[in-house]
This record gives sequence, C-alpha cells and structure tokens, in this order.
Amino acid sequence: MSGLLRFGISLPKDLLEKFDKLIKAKNYSNRSEAFRDLIRQELVKEEWKAGTEVVGAVTLVYDHHKRELVNKLTDIQHDFQGTIISTQHIHLDHNNCLELIAVKGPATNITKLADTLKSVNGVKHGTLSMSSTGKGLK
Amino acid sequence: MSGLLRFGISLPKDLLEKFDKLIKAKNYSNRSEAFRDLIRQELVKEEWKAGTEVVGAVTLVYDHHKRELVNKLTDIQHDFQGTIISTQHIHLDHNNCLELIAVKGPATNITKLADTLKSVNGVKHGTLSMSSTGKGLK
Amino acid sequence: MSGLLRFGISLPKDLLEKFDKLIKAKNYSNRSEAFRDLIRQELVKEEWKAGTEVVGAVTLVYDHHKRELVNKLTDIQHDFQGTIISTQHIHLDHNNCLELIAVKGPATNITKLADTLKSVNGVKHGTLSMSSTGKGLK
Amino acid sequence: MSGLLRFGISLPKDLLEKFDKLIKAKNYSNRSEAFRDLIRQELVKEEWKAGTEVVGAVTLVYDHHKRELVNKLTDIQHDFQGTIISTQHIHLDHNNCLELIAVKGPATNITKLADTLKSVNGVKHGTLSMSSTGKGLK
Repeated sequence: MSGLLRFGISLPKDLLEKFDKLIKAKNYSNRSEAFRDLIRQELVKEEWKAGTEVVGAVTLVYDHHKRELVNKLTDIQHDFQGTIISTQHIHLDHNNCLELIAVKGPATNITKLADTLKSVNGVKHGTLSMSSTGKGLK
Repeated sequence: MSGLLRFGISLPKDLLEKFDKLIKAKNYSNRSEAFRDLIRQELVKEEWKAGTEVVGAVTLVYDHHKRELVNKLTDIQHDFQGTIISTQHIHLDHNNCLELIAVKGPATNITKLADTLKSVNGVKHGTLSMSSTGKGLK
Repeated sequence: MSGLLRFGISLPKDLLEKFDKLIKAKNYSNRSEAFRDLIRQELVKEEWKAGTEVVGAVTLVYDHHKRELVNKLTDIQHDFQGTIISTQHIHLDHNNCLELIAVKGPATNITKLADTLKSVNGVKHGTLSMSSTGKGLK
Repeated sequence: MSGLLRFGISLPKDLLEKFDKLIKAKNYSNRSEAFRDLIRQELVKEEWKAGTEVVGAVTLVYDHHKRELVNKLTDIQHDFQGTIISTQHIHLDHNNCLELIAVKGPATNITKLADTLKSVNGVKHGTLSMSSTGKGLK
C-alpha cells in the first residue's frame, strides 16, 4: 500500500464548474475520487494494449434449449481452464440464459476465449468487459 | 420461435475472401452465423439507445480491506434490488476482489446503478457490459 | 474567458507515478493539462448525449469512378446544408477518395447525416468524429 | 476491381424483420449494401490492429488567440509531414477553430501524431477517426 500524495492542479473556472456538476450527477463524493477514476480508466486501457495479465468478464446470452450448444460452451470453457475463474448462470426467461464468466490472464488469451465463445452457433450476444487485476491501480 | 429464412446477398469477390478469412480467425463455423452476430450486435446497440428492458453485467474491482466500502456497495445494491439479479464475488489476491453483478431492467436504471457503484471511493475500476434479454434476438 | 483556479487533489503515490509515466508517453507538458483533457473528454460525451449543438467530422472513403455515387453524396450534402460547414476532398489513389466533412449542429442532425452518407451504395467506409464547438470547454 | 459473388445466407425470420427495419431507418437501399458495410467495419478494425497503412482524420478544437499554440501545432504537423495529406481550418466563432487533418500512414504513426497534437496546452478537444485506404475494401 502506498501513501496519498497531495498536489495542486489549475483548471479554468468554467471547466471546473462543469466538471463539479458532472461528478455530482455521477455521485462522486469529491474531486480527488473522480480524478482517480479518470486516471485508472486510462491505465486499464494501457494494460490491455500492453497485453499484461488482466481481469475481465465475458457475458453470453443464449437459448439453453439447444443442448449441443451448452455442451460446446462447456468444452470451450474447459479448454481455457487456466483463464476462467468461475461462471455464474442466470435463467432470464423460459428460453434465454445469461452466463457471466469471470476471467483472468494475458489479454490475448481472454480476447481469444471471448471470440471463440461468441462465435458458437446459437449464442445470441456476447460481450467482453475489460478490467484489471487491481494490482497496478493503487 | 421462428423459422429460418434463406435469401441471397451479393458481395465483391475480394471483400468476401477477406471476410471468410476474418470469420475463420474468429472461429465461426459458417457465414450465416457470422452475419447473425453482426446483426445482433447492431440490434443490441439500438435496444440500449431506445432504453427498453436490457440485460448487462457490472464489474467492480476493489480492495475488500476497506470495510466501509463493502458496506456502501451492499447498500447501493439493495437500493437497486429490482435491477440486480445476482452477484458473483471473486478473490483475485490478498487485497483485490472482482465482483460481477448480473443486471436486468430499463437501460437508464442500469446505467445509473453502474455510475453509482463506480463512483464509490475505493472502487479501483468498474465496467458495464451492455447485452440483451435475448427476447428480441431470435 | 475565465481565470485559472488552483486546487489540491490527493492521489496514491503509485497511481500518480503510473499517471506521470503515461502522460509523458503521450507528450503532455504537465499534469494540469492532462487533467484538463480527461475532463473535457467527459464533457464532450455529455454534450453529445444531451443533443446540444456540437461539432464533428464525417469521413467517407469511396471509389469516385462511380459517377452516380458522387452525385448522390452531393445531393445529400445539399439537403443538410445548414449542418455542413465545408468539405475537403483527397485523392488517395487512382480509385479511392477520402472526403472530410466538417459539421456543426444538433447532435441528432449530425448523426442522421453521417448515417445517410455511410449508407450510400459504393461508400466503402464512413466514420463520425464527435467533437465540440469549444464554447463549453474553456 | 473484382466481380460480385452472390450466395445465400439463413436468418431467423424475426431477426431478419428487425434488421430490415433497422437498415430502413439508416437509409440503406438494400440488404447487400448493409451487409457490405457491416463487413467493412470489421475489416477496418483489423487493419488498425494489424498496423498496416491506414487513413484517418484528426480533429482539433482550440482557441486561435493563443499564438504560441498555433505555432506549436504547425511545428508538430511539419514533423509528421509524411503522414499528413492536407489540413482544413474552420472558424467556429470569434475564439474557437476546428482543424481537420487528413492523414495516411502506418497506424502507429497516426496514433502518435494524434496523441501529440491532443496533448498541446490549449487544445480543447481532439479526436482520431480510424478509416481505411479503401484498397482492401473492394
């Protein structure tokens, strides 16, 4: 853990007023926290570009009545065992499921896994959330 | 459930070759499935713009040693009880947690929830995955 | 024009070091300027969401040998005369042109114009850059 | 130039109806053209990832009263002479200018140029549109 450093920055008055309004609308308790978030957002982008170990979430929406589909998704997840931490399965309605897969590993592996899952016939929609191990984001 | 319709489309030869190469790299088994994905991707964007009922996932990375933070995140999740389906908690290392929150509801509610969670002091990174209930994506 | 306000913010030491490294790589001369940019980036997103008067650039890549295409693009641009400021035309090679269209107006008009131009048969690629009149970004 | 190839694809009826509605709203004259656009969009993303020769547009909004700023922007543009094709300058109001810079070259050069221009003190907003030389998009 590292200590907090305090330093000054200068902003045009109008810009600061607009920023204060925006962070109030987004529920930030103070400017420092809002700034920290803006910075971390940029750093996470860099982590994914650099291809270092990252964390993410893959979401899949599919119709679970297609039995073959479920088997295929399970097979793929086993192939990427080292990358997948855990999976959460939600019954959205009689037909549709949402699967949330927590992943951790090199950025390229995770992208490959997400692409492979999304390409399976019957998967209606897939997304990849790009987040961080948190280690570089004190 | 609706039946499959088959129809023809015309593409320049070069473009089709490049597309075939791309979908092979992304593991699609055939062109139809790749086209369906491109279409669904556009439809999901429209669902979020239109503000109808959507499905998503919020990811949060934070240091669980900050007890107050955990309480605050729990309080917020209770305020949005109608929107949150379930939550998955992962211990990334001694300090860092990953939380995956499955959400369903009007697009504006979900955006509001994600903004509120991300703004909590101590949350290192947050993302919002925009997906679909699957109902409109046969 | 408004004066500069100076105020303090606190950041964890490690986060600040990573940020300093990042802004050096991106050529910022000091932290204040980097912070101003992060803020303005967020404000411009809000301007486009709010649908106020914005500024942007539409890019189009197309094969100018298709005469009908050029006429159609010109017709559309005339229909949106109030929104288009000026157009820059570049000969990329024997076949391909790049057109850069500077636009100003309500966000929805500009999106509509970009969608309409991109949909013309023969346009190979189109983009819309979302920027600002600068008035709200002191 | 290459000839057109015609082939069949299958889509669920509901999905096709939704797609037809969407492309009508976006002014496409037929499905083939809409599909071509979806494909080209994916191919351009790949071109930028692969770092091959690409085309783009940098937009800058700034206050031209800051003389030093204008000199600095000009100096940078000269340093990237090989990458910049031409520049269009628009007077938005008494204070604000919009500059549209047409660029062509390796993806990394263009990103570097855009980062450098955006980081100059006094530039209020900058964007980078990622497009294509059109050569790979028949």
